Amino acid sequence: MSVVGREAPSPGYGVTIRVVTTSSATAAGELVAALTHAGAVLTALDVVESRPEGTTIDVSCDTLGVEHMYAVADRLGTLAGVQVRSVSDRTFLSHLGGKLAVEPKVPIRHRDDLARIYTPGVARISQAIAANPRNRYNLTIKRNSVAVVTDGSAVLGLGNLGPDAALPVMEGKAALFKRFANIDAWPVCLATQDVDEIVRTVEIVASTYGGINLEDIAAPRCFEIERRLRHTLDIPVFHDDQHGTAIVVLAALRNALRLVGKTLCDARIVVSGVGAAGTAIIRLLVAEGAAHIVAVDRDGALHRAKREASEAARWVAEHTNPERCTGTLRQVLPGADVFIGVSAGNLLDEADVAAMARDSIVFALANPHPEIDTGLARRHAAVVASGRSDELNQINNVLVFPGFFRGLLDARSRRVTTAMKLAAAHALADLVSSDQLAPGYIVPSVFVPEVVPAVAAAVEAAALGGAPDPDAD
Amino acid sequence: MSVVGREAPSPGYGVTIRVVTTSSATAAGELVAALTHAGAVLTALDVVESRPEGTTIDVSCDTLGVEHMYAVADRLGTLAGVQVRSVSDRTFLSHLGGKLAVEPKVPIRHRDDLARIYTPGVARISQAIAANPRNRYNLTIKRNSVAVVTDGSAVLGLGNLGPDAALPVMEGKAALFKRFANIDAWPVCLATQDVDEIVRTVEIVASTYGGINLEDIAAPRCFEIERRLRHTLDIPVFHDDQHGTAIVVLAALRNALRLVGKTLCDARIVVSGVGAAGTAIIRLLVAEGAAHIVAVDRDGALHRAKREASEAARWVAEHTNPERCTGTLRQVLPGADVFIGVSAGNLLDEADVAAMARDSIVFALANPHPEIDTGLARRHAAVVASGRSDELNQINNVLVFPGFFRGLLDARSRRVTTAMKLAAAHALADLVSSDQLAPGYIVPSVFVPEVVPAVAAAVEAAALGGAPDPDAD
Repeated sequence: MSVVGREAPSPGYGVTIRVVTTSSATAAGELVAALTHAGAVLTALDVVESRPEGTTIDVSCDTLGVEHMYAVADRLGTLAGVQVRSVSDRTFLSHLGGKLAVEPKVPIRHRDDLARIYTPGVARISQAIAANPRNRYNLTIKRNSVAVVTDGSAVLGLGNLGPDAALPVMEGKAALFKRFANIDAWPVCLATQDVDEIVRTVEIVASTYGGINLEDIAAPRCFEIERRLRHTLDIPVFHDDQHGTAIVVLAALRNALRLVGKTLCDARIVVSGVGAAGTAIIRLLVAEGAAHIVAVDRDGALHRAKREASEAARWVAEHTNPERCTGTLRQVLPGADVFIGVSAGNLLDEADVAAMARDSIVFALANPHPEIDTGLARRHAAVVASGRSDELNQINNVLVFPGFFRGLLDARSRRVTTAMKLAAAHALADLVSSDQLAPGYIVPSVFVPEVVPAVAAAVEAAALGGAPDPDAD
Repeated sequence: MSVVGREAPSPGYGVTIRVVTTSSATAAGELVAALTHAGAVLTALDVVESRPEGTTIDVSCDTLGVEHMYAVADRLGTLAGVQVRSVSDRTFLSHLGGKLAVEPKVPIRHRDDLARIYTPGVARISQAIAANPRNRYNLTIKRNSVAVVTDGSAVLGLGNLGPDAALPVMEGKAALFKRFANIDAWPVCLATQDVDEIVRTVEIVASTYGGINLEDIAAPRCFEIERRLRHTLDIPVFHDDQHGTAIVVLAALRNALRLVGKTLCDARIVVSGVGAAGTAIIRLLVAEGAAHIVAVDRDGALHRAKREASEAARWVAEHTNPERCTGTLRQVLPGADVFIGVSAGNLLDEADVAAMARDSIVFALANPHPEIDTGLARRHAAVVASGRSDELNQINNVLVFPGFFRGLLDARSRRVTTAMKLAAAHALADLVSSDQLAPGYIVPSVFVPEVVPAVAAAVEAAALGGAPDPDAD
C-alpha cells in the first residue's frame, strides 16, 4: 500500500470550509475565484442556510496539505462580507469513530430467536463442530473471514509506528475487503515485533479465519513470518505488500509489453529495491519467464558472485543477472527495456530514462515520491506507471487482494501458490482488451466491476485444478 | 451462559417440515392435530405454493430434540395424501454461514472516497495517532469494540470443546452485544489453554479493543487470567461467566428478598458450587453486605478451619461461614432462607426445599438441569428462578453484559470495579417496580428496552464518580 505525493491538490486533503456571506449575489463566484487563486480545487458548494442577515455556504475543496487548508480558509476570510465559521478536515471526518461495524446477520427479535442463535440452540452447533471440525466452514464465520494482521512495523511509507497507529490502515483494508469482495475482514494489530511471538500469536488466533492477510510488516521479518505461518496453518497466508504488488506489476507489465511489442523473456528489466515488494516482484517475473532481470539495491546490482546478507537477497542474486552486471542503478539502467522501482524517491533523472532502450517502460512505484518524476519520464518512455492515485496507470493492490482472497475462500484453499498468483495477474491483464489498451490504460480501474470476479475465478480455478506446489513462495 | 433443559418443546429444536398435500381442504387441521399429538408445538403454517396437483405447506414447530424432529415428520408422513419433502432444522439454518458481518461505516464509491479512507488520506490518521495515542479513541473502532475471548475450555455446559466449537457461541455473544448495546464485538478464539500463552496473546491483540469480555474459560484458570490481564491492560477486563452471573443473581436476590420481606444481611444463604460463577456470586454478595453465607462444594461446606486447595476457595472460606457449619449440601440447607445453585443438576429433592426456612428463595441455575426440579421447588419456596429460557425468572447474563460494557466504553473506563457491579445490580433490580414485583417477575425480560440504558448509566456513573478501587476482584 502506498502513500502518494502531495504535489497536486488531493481528496486526501479535502476540506469543507463553512462561511457566512452577506453579499450572496456575488459570493459564489468570488469564493471560487479566491480558492482557485489559492491553489485549491473546488469539489462542492452547498448552501446550508439562507437568511436576510447572511447566507451560510459549505465550500468543499481539495488542497495540498493541512497548512494549505488553513491558508485557503484564511484567503476566503479576507473577502469582503465573508466570515469563516469552521474548517473541517474531510479525511478526519471520515475516520471519526472508526470505519468498521460488526453486524448480526440474523434478527434477534424475541425469546425464540435468542433460543436459536444463543442458548440453548447454539449448543447443538458447538457439538456439531466438535463432532466434525469441517462443519466450521458451514456453521461459523470462518468461511468468509480474513484477518488483516500487522505488527505496525512498516505502516504505509511512514515506518515503524506500532499497532495503534496501524489500526486505521487495517480498518481501511477491511472496509475494502467488504466493499469489493464481500469478505468479512477484521484488524489484528499486534503489540509485538518479535518474530516468534508474531508467529505464535497468529497461530493461536487463526481458527476464526478462513485466511490471513499480512500487512505492513517490515522486511526481512515479513519473509520469515509468512514462511513459518504457511507451514503451520491450514488456511492460506498472503503478504499483500509482497504478492499483491507483484501480481499487479506483472499484470501491468504484460500489457505494457504487449503495447510496445516486446516479450517478457527477451526484455531487459531493472528492478530497484529488493525489500518485500521488490523480492516478490522478481520471484513472480522469474516464474513467468523473465530471463534478463537485474536487481539493484543501495549497494548496486545483485549478482551471484557477491555475498548477499539476507536469504531473500541471495535468492534474487542466484536467479537473476545471468550476465553478472555490476554497478549502480544509473550504471545498469542504460539500454534496459523496463524499469521497476520499489525503492525511494527521486533516484533518477530525465537523462537516465532517455538512456533506456527504445519504447521503454517505467514503473516508478516509490511512495510518496516516485523514483523519477513521472512527467519527465513520459518524455522518453512509452509507458509510465506509478503508485499515485492522481495519475494514469496507478499500480494499486486493491486490484488484487479482494478478488484473490475471494477466490481462496471460495475454493477453501489451504495455501497460496505461484500458479494462483500468475493466474490472477493474467486475468487482471486480460481485462484490458486490445481496443482499450493504451499507454495511459494498462490496468483497469479498481471500480471496474469485472475486476474482482475475474481475479477470484482465476485463483479459484488454480486452487481447484492446480498441481501440488509445495515450494510456492 | 447456559444450556437449558430439554423437557419441553423448545425453539432451540425448532424445525420446518415441508409437506405436499393433495387434500388441502382438511390438510391444515390434520397436520396440526398430528404434530400436537406427536408432542410438538406449532409455531407457523405457511402455504408455499398452491397447485391443482397439491399444496406445498411449511409446517414450523418446536420439538424436544433432533430425534423428535424426525419422529414428528414421520408422523406427518403417515397422514393420507401427505408427503414430506424436507425437514429443516431451524437452529442450524440460523447459523449457516456464521452470524456476523463486518461492514464499512463509510461509503466507498469512487477514487476520492478511496483517497480519504485509504491511501493517501489514512496516512494522516496514522500520524495523528502516532503523535498522540489518545486519538485512537476518536479515529478508530477502539472506542466501541469489545473482544469476546475464549480458550474453549468451558463451552456452555458442554465442557472443553476447544476454540473451533466455541466460535458459534462467541459469534452469538457478539451478535447480542450489537443487538442490545450497539457494541462492535468480535470473537477471539484461542487455540491454547496455557495460562501464560492466553495472557500474552490477549495482551498482544488488545490494542484494537476498548474492552475484553472473557467467556467460557474454565475455573480456576479464569481467575488467574482475569487478574493478570487486569494488571497489564489499560482497558477493562470482565469475565462474564463470573461477574455477569453474579450481577444478575444479586439483582434477582434483592427483589426476591424485597418480596418476602427479608434483608440480605440477615438472610441465611447457601451457595452450591464454588467455580467461576459461585465464587463471583459470593464475592458480590459479601460486598453487598451478606453476612450468613455458607458455600458448599463436592467436599461439603467450606470454612476457615479447612485447608482449601485453590486461592479462590480459600478466599471464600475466609469470608463466609462465620458459624463454621460443616457437612454436605443437604446437611447445611435446612433452615436457610436462600439457596443459590451453580453446580450440577438434581442434587436436591422436594424435602430439601421443604426443610428450608419459611418463604424461602431458590435459584437453581445449573445447566442443562437445575439443582432441583423447579416445579417441585415451587411447592415450598416463595420465589424460584432458574437459567431456563422457557420458565419465569430466567437468570440470564444478557441482562447485564451489553449494558455493562456500554457503560465501560462510554466512560472510557480502564478497569472494572466492585462499585460498578453493585451499581449495575441495583439498577437492574430497580427496573422492577413495586407494582410489578411478583414471585414470577423478579428481573425484567432482556427485551425490555430500559435494561441496557439503565445498566449502562449505572456503570458509567460508578466509573466516572467512583473512588479508586484497586482491590476490586
